[in-house]
Amino acid sequence: MLPFDRSEYVGRMKKVQAQMIAKDIDALLITDPANMCYLAGHDAWSFYVHQMLLITLDDEMPIFIGRYMDAFSGVVKTTWLDENHVRAYSDDYVQSTIKHPMDYVSDVMKELKLDNKRIAVEMDNYYFTAAAYLSLKEGLPNAQLVNGNVLVNWVRIIKSHGEIELMKRAGKIAEKAMQAAVDTLEAGARQCDVAASIFGAQIRGTAEFGGDYPSIVPLLPAGKAAGAPHLTWTDERYPENIIVAVELAGCHQRYHSPMARTVSIGKPSEEAHRVAEITVEGLNAALEAAKPGNTCEDIEGAWRNVIAKYGIEKESRIGYSMGLNYPPDWGEHTASLRPGDKTILKPNMTFHCIPGMYFDDFGVSISESFRITENGYETFANFPRKLFIK
Amino acid sequence: MLPFDRSEYVGRMKKVQAQMIAKDIDALLITDPANMCYLAGHDAWSFYVHQMLLITLDDEMPIFIGRYMDAFSGVVKTTWLDENHVRAYSDDYVQSTIKHPMDYVSDVMKELKLDNKRIAVEMDNYYFTAAAYLSLKEGLPNAQLVNGNVLVNWVRIIKSHGEIELMKRAGKIAEKAMQAAVDTLEAGARQCDVAASIFGAQIRGTAEFGGDYPSIVPLLPAGKAAGAPHLTWTDERYPENIIVAVELAGCHQRYHSPMARTVSIGKPSEEAHRVAEITVEGLNAALEAAKPGNTCEDIEGAWRNVIAKYGIEKESRIGYSMGLNYPPDWGEHTASLRPGDKTILKPNMTFHCIPGMYFDDFGVSISESFRITENGYETFANFPRKLFIK
Repeated sequence: MLPFDRSEYVGRMKKVQAQMIAKDIDALLITDPANMCYLAGHDAWSFYVHQMLLITLDDEMPIFIGRYMDAFSGVVKTTWLDENHVRAYSDDYVQSTIKHPMDYVSDVMKELKLDNKRIAVEMDNYYFTAAAYLSLKEGLPNAQLVNGNVLVNWVRIIKSHGEIELMKRAGKIAEKAMQAAVDTLEAGARQCDVAASIFGAQIRGTAEFGGDYPSIVPLLPAGKAAGAPHLTWTDERYPENIIVAVELAGCHQRYHSPMARTVSIGKPSEEAHRVAEITVEGLNAALEAAKPGNTCEDIEGAWRNVIAKYGIEKESRIGYSMGLNYPPDWGEHTASLRPGDKTILKPNMTFHCIPGMYFDDFGVSISESFRITENGYETFANFPRKLFIK
Repeated sequence: MLPFDRSEYVGRMKKVQAQMIAKDIDALLITDPANMCYLAGHDAWSFYVHQMLLITLDDEMPIFIGRYMDAFSGVVKTTWLDENHVRAYSDDYVQSTIKHPMDYVSDVMKELKLDNKRIAVEMDNYYFTAAAYLSLKEGLPNAQLVNGNVLVNWVRIIKSHGEIELMKRAGKIAEKAMQAAVDTLEAGARQCDVAASIFGAQIRGTAEFGGDYPSIVPLLPAGKAAGAPHLTWTDERYPENIIVAVELAGCHQRYHSPMARTVSIGKPSEEAHRVAEITVEGLNAALEAAKPGNTCEDIEGAWRNVIAKYGIEKESRIGYSMGLNYPPDWGEHTASLRPGDKTILKPNMTFHCIPGMYFDDFGVSISESFRITENGYETFANFPRKLFIK
């Protein structure tokens, strides 16, 4: 059932434990669902309640701590963890106004004699709230709580061969999903019907492999609202002339390949046409800078040089490391393609380069997801890099 | 573009401000995307970066604080907030390893002379991390940070007429989505193709109104894994004989109507058949207890009495308040249908009652979403309450 064999999970654990040793961490509490999946193979929509992995230095297997409902029938049956590595709190802890699941976690830490140790937590993860921190701090007064945020994420940044294969599959699904968008975007179509076509293609996948839910739903900002890149859709009908920026991802076994393309319903304005051409030229230049030895900021610099020729400046980053993830983000929160990011590119790092151009009355977004190869880059999807005109 | 008129938003703000006064809170920082939508009408997939609403006592309009990319072209164009009520941080704060968006928020609080006030934050919300709390605590040493968790959620528990109408629409969409599941679940079908059919129906909606993305993807635990209720799907094919527990929601303009039904591919075992009948009997009894004046625990007690007759005990809660929401949960994190919850039922409270019966080798889940009426309850969807046999 698991997408990787046990040795890959053990190898990942070893890399994380090496980081723990380097940072003088005795125990690591992992709440990021992507990190939990990466290390335990745990894949379920149970992250809406408090759950985590406990990683120590002397055990190759992490311990899952979570809700009883998810623990034994779920974790033990679907991950490489055995039942000795599962601890579960009773259901009255769930969304309780009188007690907190982290109180239970403190008890587990005491039982394992970790309560006077140096314990790292993922301080800025969605699934490690302020209340979780405060409960743990109160429950473990003799522990030293330190920041282990994105520690595992940085281990994830270079993908294994097996992970790359899953991302290539995700790229194939992204092609199908984007084709569904291009096919259905037309004057008179309801936005929700276009979104439904995209979802259908994303989840069906291909005849050979199925689709998984991407960590972000299709984003379809259009017309004047296209300047706001994170809008979703309504049930309004598209008018005769409008530009729609489509951002979506293919996803397979939680691995993503995001893609943005822009579709003009009706003839685009001169300006939109020009912006699209500049975007493609800039994106191509960025991709040419994507090779081992260069840095993340080199990729952004190549883009910046192109748009500067045309008198355009763009404030925001143009991409980020990505791969395995869960809602609400497919980005890994490690390397970003922006000035100042001196992360050195290495083979099998994987990025989404999305230099969105957002203006007051329209937006153009054309992107590629790719891996760094031995001497350059390889995109996960193969889809025309242009403004589509319907 | 907004689903409610300005007076409804102002009314919601007044209720929240009354709670703030009662709790001696000068300023409230709201990070829950559902609460942000409830009070500002803000609806975008921008919650993966730090963003919030600031509510004070002397302004009927909240202030949005978020990423520049989302602020002016998004918030100002799509909510009832004017541009004087929007503050935006620059893109280099996003997922930075050297600074935190909450540092910017502290600066805003100082500028507004709120830095020595009693400030409430949503301590246990997914979108208020430990790092956010620690940054704010450091940035505002003279402020008193107190817990405003679920303060707005409790205001949301009684829905307006307009909200109920949106939930009825969500109920119609839930019917279509569940019908898609029942129609496509069969031996030989790939799990992902069933999921794709469900997604298609969820997002298309009806001819009259479109669907929105539910806060949780369809959950399709099957066979032995059906004991683990939060599993999603794979691309494996269903065998000749298996029981699939389907949990999904219809969603319209972020309002949900969840529903669970169970489908047996092939003839169900005697035991599964019996469990399904007990579940329906228990659910019916629970619904009969759903009326003004009763409490949340009365609903659970009615269910518990029925299953006790058959010698069954169930540990977990059987439901929760729900309505407007964003990933990763459609539950409101306020009232739960479980022992000890003495919340008194009032008209237009809305619940999902899902008494899932999870066993080692199969699971049965049959649920209803409903509102409390003047003298009883009304379900949002109308779908046969039974075990489906294909």
